[in-house]
Amino acid sequence: MTDTAKRTGAFITFEGGEGAGKSTQLRAVAPRLEQLGYDVVATREPGGSPGAEALRELLLFGGHDLSARAEIMTHFAARCDHVDQVIIPAVTAGKIVLCDRFYDSTMAYQGYGRGDGDPALIAMIQSLSGLVGIKPDLTILFEVGLETGYNRIKARAASATGKPVPLDRYESADRAFHERVSAGFCRIAESEPARFARVSSENEDVATITDRVVGLVQTFLEKR
Amino acid sequence: MTDTAKRTGAFITFEGGEGAGKSTQLRAVAPRLEQLGYDVVATREPGGSPGAEALRELLLFGGHDLSARAEIMTHFAARCDHVDQVIIPAVTAGKIVLCDRFYDSTMAYQGYGRGDGDPALIAMIQSLSGLVGIKPDLTILFEVGLETGYNRIKARAASATGKPVPLDRYESADRAFHERVSAGFCRIAESEPARFARVSSENEDVATITDRVVGLVQTFLEKR
Repeated sequence: MTDTAKRTGAFITFEGGEGAGKSTQLRAVAPRLEQLGYDVVATREPGGSPGAEALRELLLFGGHDLSARAEIMTHFAARCDHVDQVIIPAVTAGKIVLCDRFYDSTMAYQGYGRGDGDPALIAMIQSLSGLVGIKPDLTILFEVGLETGYNRIKARAASATGKPVPLDRYESADRAFHERVSAGFCRIAESEPARFARVSSENEDVATITDRVVGLVQTFLEKR
Repeated sequence: MTDTAKRTGAFITFEGGEGAGKSTQLRAVAPRLEQLGYDVVATREPGGSPGAEALRELLLFGGHDLSARAEIMTHFAARCDHVDQVIIPAVTAGKIVLCDRFYDSTMAYQGYGRGDGDPALIAMIQSLSGLVGIKPDLTILFEVGLETGYNRIKARAASATGKPVPLDRYESADRAFHERVSAGFCRIAESEPARFARVSSENEDVATITDRVVGLVQTFLEKR
């Protein structure tokens, strides 16, 4: 790897359903890439900038009962702020941006999950994705069986403190919803095989998966 | 006019810069149309539904400093909720919806005012307008000289109570901004002459202008 390669920015997204381990992996992968000499920015959606965090609060806990189309558009409004204020400046400055969820999550949760694949919503999400101003260079999709994912969420809710942790509206949604989300992610990944790397987190421990993801990212960055 | 005509819904927007009188006229025109036998719904943007009002608060007074693109997308998110929850149901039920501001205001304020006509922002607003799900049947553009409009805003701020009223961020913006907004409205109206009716509120009293607007709307509704 040359110094020039290390100074070329990249935008890498981590996607997956609840309990698939993407947030855990992002926290583990970021310092490993820094040890390899990359300048890493770790961020997440919804949120990632002050304005986007305010919109995230309104979406997740505001209780305003937005229409399906308005919910989608609000996700994209927060995304635009995050892209303009955090992601594009960092990538332009040569950094490797690792982002926990991006527009594939809107397609999976709002398009296929809440929207049940309604063609009008899918088309709207595709149009909005084209307006965002950046496309991920690489997307790692973490996949886990629904039972395993649900058990991980329950364990997280019980938490280390022993106190119950409230689940946000997605995590407490029903099983059929999560099945549609999972099938949605699968469909998105199949439609863009060149952008996606799929990682099963069903049967292996966290450290093994981290090694695999670091390898995937490193290979991708070096062969550009 | 037949009963059938009265039961066919319509979506009519009132547009214009600060102090042009559109809100005053909307309040005066609505009861006059009701007296003529129309079922009228008066609403406004940003806002108009509970979720959209929450987004309006965040936009006008949240102080989150959203990027220009995120501000535009948040306006459209609020608009989608308003369209889905208020405007489309009312028009479908045969009502005449009078709306104080719609997407032409986003084009004038964010595209031409804040964005200074940036082609990328103009194109984004056009794309988003196409995703909203409804287009105004008739738009009445209220036009007033900048001096007159500004004097009306100052008078409103002083208010009947004698206490100063805080101006929101648009009303307190500078003169060059309001000149760009005004020129922007003019350009939008010229690009779609069939949809727009332009009314000068410079030299005539409120009642005279109300009569003219009621006449315009009535003619439009009857000849459909």
